[in-house]
Amino acid sequence: MSRTAADHLSRRTAIVGIGATEFSKDSGRSEWRLAVESVKAALDDAGLIPSDVDGMVTYTMETNPEVYIGQALGFGELTFFSRIHYGGGGACATIQQAALAVTSGVADVVVCYRAFNERSGFRLGSGLMADTQAATTEATRYSWLAPYGLKTPASWVAMYAQRYLYEYGATTEAFGHVAVACRKHAATNPAAHFYKRPITLADHQSSPWIAEPLRLLDCCQETDGGQALIVTSIERARSLRRHPAVVVASAQGSAPQQHPMTSFYRDVLSGVPEMGVVARQLWRTSGLEPKDMDAAILYDHFTPLVLMQLEELGFCARGEAKDFVKSGALELGGALPINMNGGQIGEAYLHGMNGIAEGVRQIRGTAVNQVPEAGNILVTAGTSTPTSGLILSRDR
Amino acid sequence: MSRTAADHLSRRTAIVGIGATEFSKDSGRSEWRLAVESVKAALDDAGLIPSDVDGMVTYTMETNPEVYIGQALGFGELTFFSRIHYGGGGACATIQQAALAVTSGVADVVVCYRAFNERSGFRLGSGLMADTQAATTEATRYSWLAPYGLKTPASWVAMYAQRYLYEYGATTEAFGHVAVACRKHAATNPAAHFYKRPITLADHQSSPWIAEPLRLLDCCQETDGGQALIVTSIERARSLRRHPAVVVASAQGSAPQQHPMTSFYRDVLSGVPEMGVVARQLWRTSGLEPKDMDAAILYDHFTPLVLMQLEELGFCARGEAKDFVKSGALELGGALPINMNGGQIGEAYLHGMNGIAEGVRQIRGTAVNQVPEAGNILVTAGTSTPTSGLILSRDR
Repeated sequence: MSRTAADHLSRRTAIVGIGATEFSKDSGRSEWRLAVESVKAALDDAGLIPSDVDGMVTYTMETNPEVYIGQALGFGELTFFSRIHYGGGGACATIQQAALAVTSGVADVVVCYRAFNERSGFRLGSGLMADTQAATTEATRYSWLAPYGLKTPASWVAMYAQRYLYEYGATTEAFGHVAVACRKHAATNPAAHFYKRPITLADHQSSPWIAEPLRLLDCCQETDGGQALIVTSIERARSLRRHPAVVVASAQGSAPQQHPMTSFYRDVLSGVPEMGVVARQLWRTSGLEPKDMDAAILYDHFTPLVLMQLEELGFCARGEAKDFVKSGALELGGALPINMNGGQIGEAYLHGMNGIAEGVRQIRGTAVNQVPEAGNILVTAGTSTPTSGLILSRDR
Repeated sequence: MSRTAADHLSRRTAIVGIGATEFSKDSGRSEWRLAVESVKAALDDAGLIPSDVDGMVTYTMETNPEVYIGQALGFGELTFFSRIHYGGGGACATIQQAALAVTSGVADVVVCYRAFNERSGFRLGSGLMADTQAATTEATRYSWLAPYGLKTPASWVAMYAQRYLYEYGATTEAFGHVAVACRKHAATNPAAHFYKRPITLADHQSSPWIAEPLRLLDCCQETDGGQALIVTSIERARSLRRHPAVVVASAQGSAPQQHPMTSFYRDVLSGVPEMGVVARQLWRTSGLEPKDMDAAILYDHFTPLVLMQLEELGFCARGEAKDFVKSGALELGGALPINMNGGQIGEAYLHGMNGIAEGVRQIRGTAVNQVPEAGNILVTAGTSTPTSGLILSRDR
């Protein structure tokens, strides 16, 4: 990668609109409608109209094709549409895609979106989606693991979590501090499922095993809902109604011996090196450092991966996240507040897209749990799979 | 779209390697292996090694995830991976994605690939893939058509084809001229399935109906195989062993009331306006015109859509393609030779990726059916669905 060229993408675009449905366990309507509602809300937030949109980005797992959303809302021609594979690992990459398109003049206004009935419909937490009898590459790879009971996301992540505890002499209380911080923030966020329902470390320690060493309270929710974000050029952003959340850096990363969620053939299992690949790009292209971050939205499908992210991103040395998270470092007012919306543990599981929206609110200064004077916010996507990350900042 | 910004992407990258498996009706091996073989062949062709690769682009329909190909070949870290939806409509967009990544410094060497056992495994021609009982957006949309027998690609395209004949007073001989040209070129291409098997217009006219007015010889093949292409910066391209095929323009397009293959609610059914969206971008960003093209690779899943593309791209006025294709205009030596590899009708159906490879060979001057002094080649992707296009040129 050329540093000069990568810098070309920095500070050229901004997130100018965010919109979501309510987050629920049973939306009572179609995934298509959730997508359309959230995109419409994001356009309204930005002060843009459907005919302004010429680009769309989503996940390969998204079941609402770009063109059907465009039809429902009355989009005109589209000149850009792309998707990212690997589930929640793609969250921040959708913003990078939009930044690439806008910076290169391929599109002017790009909608990034994700919508699903992930609780009342198909639950990702139920595990293997591939037909393990099919002769596809993915099914074949999972067929090596499924006979040993490794069939669900929790079972896969438990492997890394156990190794982390062993290598660094940690206890599951370290995981608990992450959950407590997220639930504390959710408790004061009316949009969160766990609004007014904080937990204690004792609650965490007494919650049932899901896949040892993961307990119930280490796992994110399953949610019905939609979330959309609008990206445009920094110049156009300045003419719109909201304070722009400037895309200062965006990056994707996959490391050697990378599997989707099951990279068990690596020499070291106690990290998420794909986030290291992302981190090096974010710091290099932004010219910023971990100490410059006022807060972080760290993808919290499972609490142990938050600890590993803190280390890969450079907030802690290897094995030290377990100490860092003690005494409220991750809570509002702490050394590095995370997931001020409650995260995917406390607010909702929107495959990472609601976390980006929270990053935008923090930069705007409109969050319910606002970090004072937040100028730089780090946002990450799902780890233990190819992933992505983002730094959002105030316009200068 | 800003013209200045879009020009930024022009002539900054090149296709430097192409590689494919054999094209067959029964590969006898896994789709994963087909993908790996074709990617390895493309790297060898470019004189690059697996550890040079840091980006990968493919289709949402691809069943071989990026990371599994990387593992098989020994890739290191990846910093870019994206996919395009809508089947063969994404072909040229994979190259645009690579160009975006390389131009912006996000990746240096990007592999674009597609591999499948599309004849011996799941046949796209067999039609509806979505479970029409599922409550997904796509299934719902197709459920409005399926009860009327509109279940296969041929049945969907027949709707446009019939309308084209009606509006412009054409006969199916116009479709036949496209088939004859493709099969003529395939007949002298040893890699083509229909090598040494040309057809006459009479053969076309006597071939059986598949979905009236489409006959057997209007339809592309179904093929097992893999095709990969390598994209890097123009500067690096000049240091490699092959003459670069410079990416002068690349574009995606979707038009209002766009459905995947079934845009039957448009006021006009006799065109493929999504290719018009692509065409306008290609001409504007390249500064070239139709008359500057020495040849074209026009996506030929069904012959009528080639006629409509000729009109959308500006090679003919509306309704005049039926006259243009008479007397061999599309054949080598004609006014606009197309599909010199035999196309997807004559060579193989690799979802458009083999057509891009043929464009590269023409620019290199190494094609079996070489257009003399080919300097600019237009390549298109699947139409009647969101689509894409590409102009490849010789390095100056």
